[in-house]
Amino acid sequence: MVDSKIDWQPLAEIKGLRLGVAAAGIKYPNRHDVAILSVEEGASVAGVFTQSAFSAAPIQVCREHLSAAKNSADQPRLLVINSGNANACTGPSGLQSALDVCGHLAQVGKVKPEQVLPFSTGVIGEPLDASKITAVLEPALESATEAGWEHVARAIMTTDTRPKGACVTLEADGGEISISGVAKGAGMINPNMATMLAFIATDAAIAPALLDCMCRVAANKSFNRITIDGDTSTNDASMLIATGKAPDFPLLESEDDTRYASVLAGIVEVFESLAQQIVRDGEGATKFVEIKVQGGKSAQESLNVAYAVAHSPLVKTALYASDANWGRIVAAIGYADIEKLDATLVKVWLDDVCVVEQGERASNYRDEDGQKVFEQSEFSIVIDLGRGASEESLWTSDLSHEYIRINAEYRS
Amino acid sequence: MVDSKIDWQPLAEIKGLRLGVAAAGIKYPNRHDVAILSVEEGASVAGVFTQSAFSAAPIQVCREHLSAAKNSADQPRLLVINSGNANACTGPSGLQSALDVCGHLAQVGKVKPEQVLPFSTGVIGEPLDASKITAVLEPALESATEAGWEHVARAIMTTDTRPKGACVTLEADGGEISISGVAKGAGMINPNMATMLAFIATDAAIAPALLDCMCRVAANKSFNRITIDGDTSTNDASMLIATGKAPDFPLLESEDDTRYASVLAGIVEVFESLAQQIVRDGEGATKFVEIKVQGGKSAQESLNVAYAVAHSPLVKTALYASDANWGRIVAAIGYADIEKLDATLVKVWLDDVCVVEQGERASNYRDEDGQKVFEQSEFSIVIDLGRGASEESLWTSDLSHEYIRINAEYRS
Repeated sequence: MVDSKIDWQPLAEIKGLRLGVAAAGIKYPNRHDVAILSVEEGASVAGVFTQSAFSAAPIQVCREHLSAAKNSADQPRLLVINSGNANACTGPSGLQSALDVCGHLAQVGKVKPEQVLPFSTGVIGEPLDASKITAVLEPALESATEAGWEHVARAIMTTDTRPKGACVTLEADGGEISISGVAKGAGMINPNMATMLAFIATDAAIAPALLDCMCRVAANKSFNRITIDGDTSTNDASMLIATGKAPDFPLLESEDDTRYASVLAGIVEVFESLAQQIVRDGEGATKFVEIKVQGGKSAQESLNVAYAVAHSPLVKTALYASDANWGRIVAAIGYADIEKLDATLVKVWLDDVCVVEQGERASNYRDEDGQKVFEQSEFSIVIDLGRGASEESLWTSDLSHEYIRINAEYRS
Repeated sequence: MVDSKIDWQPLAEIKGLRLGVAAAGIKYPNRHDVAILSVEEGASVAGVFTQSAFSAAPIQVCREHLSAAKNSADQPRLLVINSGNANACTGPSGLQSALDVCGHLAQVGKVKPEQVLPFSTGVIGEPLDASKITAVLEPALESATEAGWEHVARAIMTTDTRPKGACVTLEADGGEISISGVAKGAGMINPNMATMLAFIATDAAIAPALLDCMCRVAANKSFNRITIDGDTSTNDASMLIATGKAPDFPLLESEDDTRYASVLAGIVEVFESLAQQIVRDGEGATKFVEIKVQGGKSAQESLNVAYAVAHSPLVKTALYASDANWGRIVAAIGYADIEKLDATLVKVWLDDVCVVEQGERASNYRDEDGQKVFEQSEFSIVIDLGRGASEESLWTSDLSHEYIRINAEYRS
């Protein structure tokens, strides 16, 4: 059902949402680096933001504007994104730049400044020249159409090698709705530092408070499954918009509504697809690996183990080398700091090949079987802690020469 | 005072400790891969071990034997180390191998099996053939001399490119004592997976309980400053031996003894030198960087920030590229999860160049000044959190192409 091909596949248009772009010359000339999402009146908008102590100026403005919208009939109407400069660690002048962009777009779009949400991605610590952006806001808004998804997907890219989009169409109690979204992000070994931005919209009608919950649940099952400690870059944001323009779809207001589960599942599917596309486009990534931890006492401890394995540079280089060095997996489980973990209950599989039983090499494990799994470009590492019923998954990639090259050369 | 040249410089001999080696052919033929430390009666022995849930068989045996020694007059007398195989994740048969080595060496050395401490380093998860080791224990013990430090330093190497040794000689209230030590370990980006072993000895007379405290303090200021969460590999161990054979040095039993501070300082100096040598020999390392965090509310929060910066792959690749990309440092501080960190109080220096003030780029910072610092092979990143009096340092290295090559090829 999810549409997430490497080559761009058009996304379902979302009635009530128009998308436009422009070239402001922020970092490179003649490249679309400003994008606008224009939301018709009556929509709900929710967002999840970075927890970084150094959250960027636009993130601070987003938080304030969204919080103001909560107690007002004036929901956000315009989202504006720039690539090429993160406007992070830029102090009071950076804050002013973000406010200038909002103020100017509010004038152009005839809404209140608080109804504009700004987003930035790019280099940290460089002053952002707002005038470059404000100069193109009018043409960007004029170019906006319901078919503009691909333009936006490309305009927000930084180190990404491909635009990322996904969509789902589903029926809930007779009303058909669509969910479309785009995302950017590519820093895989430590994605909390590479800005992750996602903009997902549905034509379903969903009350703001419920949409907020659904956005949190979906982000937690997707983008927070590819990062350390949830949202932790200076600029990360995942936005969910419900335009309410689908015919035959009365307002969804409560989790008790029979349509809730299927709508949420559709939203999660789009979020997950985008998150997985970010992993696949990880800087220099040659592998896509699911780390699944079951048998944990709690979700947190399952995730701790999964992150320890996923973030271990030694595991990541073994993935890159296609070397089924399972000892490195076990060592990472060992230092995940799980209280009183009984190593003799731990099992590990590479896809369906059991490699560790009772904390040691499985008696019938053969190196060539593990090797075959590791030679694939996609596979799973499954870990059973043998102490509970919790089960959590996340996705990661390998650590390659190309990662070093990209990150050693970026900015130079 | 500390002797830690790259070319081997002979260490002070420690009366009452003899060191020998042998070639057992564990992984490679004709290479010294077994080492023995033979301690005369009357010595005290202390150790700090990995906290991994998958602690290796020899570590389990070490813990038991040391704990038995605490309630007995029979202090450990023989330490036996093998490289080439970690004897980790090897289950009951691995435990039996470690016990077999102890039993055999006890017979050869005419001590009780509980007076033997075994150590292993190398690949995880491979069965250890104890008979290869037991076959050479007698010649290894026979070869032991007080001048054997260099042989042991080389025999315990795995991915290390150089042997590591340090020594200090000091006077405390008229009694001259020496402290000598060797270590192995080279996995720098995530050293908790590369086994770290250290064997430090002094001819001072120190009571077992006090020696145990001193070992913990010294490890915490050194080896725990280059790892995540302290000791977290399957096989890590730092051992401290006090032979008590120095003339004119009555037993040191209490922290109130006027000699305590100077003896501890000497021990810490040797531990620190060995830890720094491990960083300098980090896999593929081209830089040696001190991360110093001051102005923290507590040691723990200062360390959290230091670790976040030191372990960030993006910071590490910037170090490798000699690119003073300070935004990556700030982003790492931001996600270190410090409660209510006020970004506008944060300052960052590269050596003495102030790059961040009030959470943004320092007004008089010039890129070329930061660049000059980053182009050095050794420098400091100093971070002031502006919220307390705590100050903690740790040492790290960069992430290079060579790191990927070493770790992708190891075992293959």
